[in-house]
Amino acid sequence: MHEHEHDPNSHPAHGYDKEAVRKRLARIEGQVRGIARMVDDDTYCIDVLTQVSATTKALEAVALKLLEDHLAHCVVDAARTSGPEADLKIKEATDAITRLVRS
Amino acid sequence: MHEHEHDPNSHPAHGYDKEAVRKRLARIEGQVRGIARMVDDDTYCIDVLTQVSATTKALEAVALKLLEDHLAHCVVDAARTSGPEADLKIKEATDAITRLVRS
Amino acid sequence: MHEHEHDPNSHPAHGYDKEAVRKRLARIEGQVRGIARMVDDDTYCIDVLTQVSATTKALEAVALKLLEDHLAHCVVDAARTSGPEADLKIKEATDAITRLVRS
Amino acid sequence: MHEHEHDPNSHPAHGYDKEAVRKRLARIEGQVRGIARMVDDDTYCIDVLTQVSATTKALEAVALKLLEDHLAHCVVDAARTSGPEADLKIKEATDAITRLVRS
Repeated sequence: MHEHEHDPNSHPAHGYDKEAVRKRLARIEGQVRGIARMVDDDTYCIDVLTQVSATTKALEAVALKLLEDHLAHCVVDAARTSGPEADLKIKEATDAITRLVRS
Repeated sequence: MHEHEHDPNSHPAHGYDKEAVRKRLARIEGQVRGIARMVDDDTYCIDVLTQVSATTKALEAVALKLLEDHLAHCVVDAARTSGPEADLKIKEATDAITRLVRS
Repeated sequence: MHEHEHDPNSHPAHGYDKEAVRKRLARIEGQVRGIARMVDDDTYCIDVLTQVSATTKALEAVALKLLEDHLAHCVVDAARTSGPEADLKIKEATDAITRLVRS
Repeated sequence: MHEHEHDPNSHPAHGYDKEAVRKRLARIEGQVRGIARMVDDDTYCIDVLTQVSATTKALEAVALKLLEDHLAHCVVDAARTSGPEADLKIKEATDAITRLVRS
């Protein structure tokens, strides 16, 4: 259904470990469902909040992993091939870090 | 399956609006599933990161809503009835805020 | 030079421990000056960043202390005296927590 | 008093704009002193908190600027010269970003 602009056998358009990221996201989805069940069960506010903070931390850990892989692959690759492309990648990465710090 | 320590017809053990919190959590669960689909489709790292930051922000908004309702109901109630209970509630709320700020 | 709207011998307009907060702020001011000296000495970026993160954490700790004292004194006092005043205090505290989480 | 391991006339050991960072730090030092004066004047807790959040945000902005310059200079330089050095720089930068996100 989705059209990829690259051949699946070629180098991927990203630098992250799909398997690892998918596994973490499945766990986070389970955490969010767990919080919903806590709410259904009238769980005490502070206990719900503790789970929300843990889930936020897990999401941030995914973001930090994605960012590390992005710097190690996409940014380093761009730095090695061309000047302007590297500048663009650094600007893009810094904006992503800013959104992450501000979120 | 779950045993509540309070009669469902009585005043609930929490101060939050169940319907509203459940709706937000359902939306967040959808956001997490959307990120997983982006990973399946080899979406560019920075675009995945943008969605992760948006989802983190949505989770924090749930936490802030839970906290506001908790202060408005549980903490205010405790302050009105007894001294030591209020101190305990304030300590508990501050610890939850600390976890939130640090997450 | 400053006009206080309350008699210094009366109950203060705030709930925080002035001595303790002042001591922490003096230490933070020293940390900021230390970072400036690191920059003067051409210290490596990552080492400067480590100090900036430590100082940010120290400022957040001051905020969390101020907030805890505010909840324990101003909010609890308001809850005990009147309804609308308590609502206002809760709204004000939640807005402050939101700024803190978003900063 | 300080011994630099590099000749002051050579390329600096860092990638940041000293003048700009120093100016921002001077302003932040002033903000911290301003908060101390607010405490001396028994300023209302919430107003002190607003200033603490603004100062935290200003410190984070310094960190994000240092990080952007670091990625643009040190990391890109390392990527262009050698493999293992680039890996080390990426690890170092990611650790700094993690401290920043967690602070």
